[in-house]
Amino acid sequence: MSAHPNAFDPNAFDAVDLIRTKRDGGELAPEAVDWLIAAYTDGRVAEEQMSAMAMAVLLRGLSRAELSRWTAAMIASGERLDFSGLSRPTVDKHSTGGVGDKITLPLAPLVAACGVAVPQLSGRGLGHTGGTLDKLEAIPGWRATLSLAEMTAQLEDVGAVICAAGSDLAPADKKLYALRDVTGTVESIPLIASSIMSKKIAEGTSALVLDVKVGTGAFMKTEADARELAETMVRLGQDAGVPTVALLTQMSTPLGRTAGNALEVAESVEVLAGGGPADVVELTLALAREMLAGVGRGDVDPAEALVDGRAMDVWRAMIRAQGGDPEAALTVAKETEVVRADRAGTVERVDAMAVGFAAWRLGAGRARREDQVQAGAGVTLHVRPGDEVAAGDPLFTLHTDTPARFDRARDALAGGYAVGAGPVVPQPLVIDRIG
Amino acid sequence: MSAHPNAFDPNAFDAVDLIRTKRDGGELAPEAVDWLIAAYTDGRVAEEQMSAMAMAVLLRGLSRAELSRWTAAMIASGERLDFSGLSRPTVDKHSTGGVGDKITLPLAPLVAACGVAVPQLSGRGLGHTGGTLDKLEAIPGWRATLSLAEMTAQLEDVGAVICAAGSDLAPADKKLYALRDVTGTVESIPLIASSIMSKKIAEGTSALVLDVKVGTGAFMKTEADARELAETMVRLGQDAGVPTVALLTQMSTPLGRTAGNALEVAESVEVLAGGGPADVVELTLALAREMLAGVGRGDVDPAEALVDGRAMDVWRAMIRAQGGDPEAALTVAKETEVVRADRAGTVERVDAMAVGFAAWRLGAGRARREDQVQAGAGVTLHVRPGDEVAAGDPLFTLHTDTPARFDRARDALAGGYAVGAGPVVPQPLVIDRIG
Repeated sequence: MSAHPNAFDPNAFDAVDLIRTKRDGGELAPEAVDWLIAAYTDGRVAEEQMSAMAMAVLLRGLSRAELSRWTAAMIASGERLDFSGLSRPTVDKHSTGGVGDKITLPLAPLVAACGVAVPQLSGRGLGHTGGTLDKLEAIPGWRATLSLAEMTAQLEDVGAVICAAGSDLAPADKKLYALRDVTGTVESIPLIASSIMSKKIAEGTSALVLDVKVGTGAFMKTEADARELAETMVRLGQDAGVPTVALLTQMSTPLGRTAGNALEVAESVEVLAGGGPADVVELTLALAREMLAGVGRGDVDPAEALVDGRAMDVWRAMIRAQGGDPEAALTVAKETEVVRADRAGTVERVDAMAVGFAAWRLGAGRARREDQVQAGAGVTLHVRPGDEVAAGDPLFTLHTDTPARFDRARDALAGGYAVGAGPVVPQPLVIDRIG
Repeated sequence: MSAHPNAFDPNAFDAVDLIRTKRDGGELAPEAVDWLIAAYTDGRVAEEQMSAMAMAVLLRGLSRAELSRWTAAMIASGERLDFSGLSRPTVDKHSTGGVGDKITLPLAPLVAACGVAVPQLSGRGLGHTGGTLDKLEAIPGWRATLSLAEMTAQLEDVGAVICAAGSDLAPADKKLYALRDVTGTVESIPLIASSIMSKKIAEGTSALVLDVKVGTGAFMKTEADARELAETMVRLGQDAGVPTVALLTQMSTPLGRTAGNALEVAESVEVLAGGGPADVVELTLALAREMLAGVGRGDVDPAEALVDGRAMDVWRAMIRAQGGDPEAALTVAKETEVVRADRAGTVERVDAMAVGFAAWRLGAGRARREDQVQAGAGVTLHVRPGDEVAAGDPLFTLHTDTPARFDRARDALAGGYAVGAGPVVPQPLVIDRIG
């Protein structure tokens, strides 16, 4: 048995004691959770102590009371935005991330066009899923970083803002997320839930809608895991007094017909113009209805705002307010290659993870945080499961500025799609609603 | 999903992948274990990664193959001593630590007196169990640090050496042990076993005897845990080609009649002079017989070497060889206080942990690695379970240079002993032999 500095002081918490409690399946006292998160944020609890705690949490879990307190402590580690002074209610949406998931781009201006403010703090991509900021940065002049005053003014004037989260929001989460990434402790539902919810609640929204994705291209591969994550986050929202609803949505097939930054912006603009792929429109409207209902505007039909151009007007104003030119031509990749069907038949499967990896390898995503992304890189999907093709028909177009990457992208796609005898049973896009 | 630097290189190991494998209950490949320990030693695997791995190992365990490889990799992280050039075989003993455990002091010279070399690398104490080096440093002039050449010469000339382990032995273990201490990952039988065995095997002994203690004053509180640790270490010895035997011995009552540095040296000298408490003599002889048997000298009776003074001769030579004066008066504490029986009856219990804490609080041990110990501090036990006492009879004498500590020592002892109606069932000192 070794001795720790606090061995004689029964009033102070000791990191090792708390780790041992959780390790052995015990429950942390509320004040112990507060102390742990605060002490980790300011460095009194060392990185190696928090990683052992994170592994113990991953393997032992957190009770609802522990998790609510943990999340509240992460919120309390930084500033909490307050948009209650705005003339409109605020509502926010979060997606757990998927391939081709450009929904935030049409959704934020659409909901704003219905009279609600949407303060959408977003991130950059890492790995096979793209980041919303990376996508918008494909628009010439657009800038992701706004001051709080700029953000507030834009919410009042335009109604929608998509920008980078300031580092003052939930700094404990920022630190813990970076630690979990290098210590094999990412895949913990309580830690994922508290990470997402602490940031979202700190953003000061009045209501929250979650898009929890399930499938090969999603972080949650099984419906059971996705459901548990969704239920956990909805409970955390309730415990924090922020009305929260989650949709479980499929992510085994990519969303829409594009994966890549400029490609996805163009597709989003199609949706805002009243067109675009049916699945992107369906999910945008489903999430918009939940967001409106969350702030008591359930009577408003967002579909009208797509048809009559109001959503597009907000989009243009939103892009302009952040220095972008909504009319400017989007960057196009220098080279393209087409992947064709080697036989006739029914497209049985287009795997989201395979397409995500292909887009990543073409330059649309980053392997390390400091990497640059290519605005024009990515994959265009010419077919969806259920489509009939002839031998030689185009399946995918690959886009990149660095043609040496085509081979790696083709490798990523190999085995990620199938053309066969069919039939293909259609899968619902929205699997369930939790809230 | 996040991306790691080795994402595109299937030939390199990635710390996060290995953590995830162990976290999810998988088995690490032999080469992965080698890489992990080597990369941790040289800093390519970060402290926070190793602490997550240690927690995963604590909660998921290691297979025999993983653990043997882990131990071998820790040995390979540094130099390995080689005493095969000596004219006598070498044998080493390790105790998992207990209160009043001064056995190394009489044992090493006793076994050396029987013609075997005993290279006993030891440590300092932390917490309630004392360290062998702390005890010997109560002898004026004695020094713990020897060069390898000095150590080898002393083994050849005197036969016994007790000194500090060089930092070149199993540096991976040294680093991992310090990490485990602050991350709540000490209490893992595979990690404890590999820590002990990597150091002991790196010390180059031909055979090894383990004293695995069980009870309130031991690291292992239950016989089941102690047995598992003993069996694990014996298997590791076998796998490394070092014949290893373990005795399970009781540590709910302190060993002998003293706990404290100079006090224990004096008691050890009594044993070497053919006297001393019966339990200390019994355990010293039991371990000596195992050590002699381990190097094929099972026919030698070590009891004779205690009676005829040969063990004492080696003790004196050993102390002198390291600069100490075996005839010098030992340090005596400045103040003493006596704890007396408040009623007549049978001593039913003298708790090892309580006595260990009392000695620690009196100044015999350290709370932090940088603390100084008092040579004269500690506890003398006037009674053992089963003894009859009258009201007012002395039970313990407390020794310290800082009388303000008496109250804390009395607090530590309160509840740690009982005088009642009896009877007391004697417990065997050696519970079992595993090997």
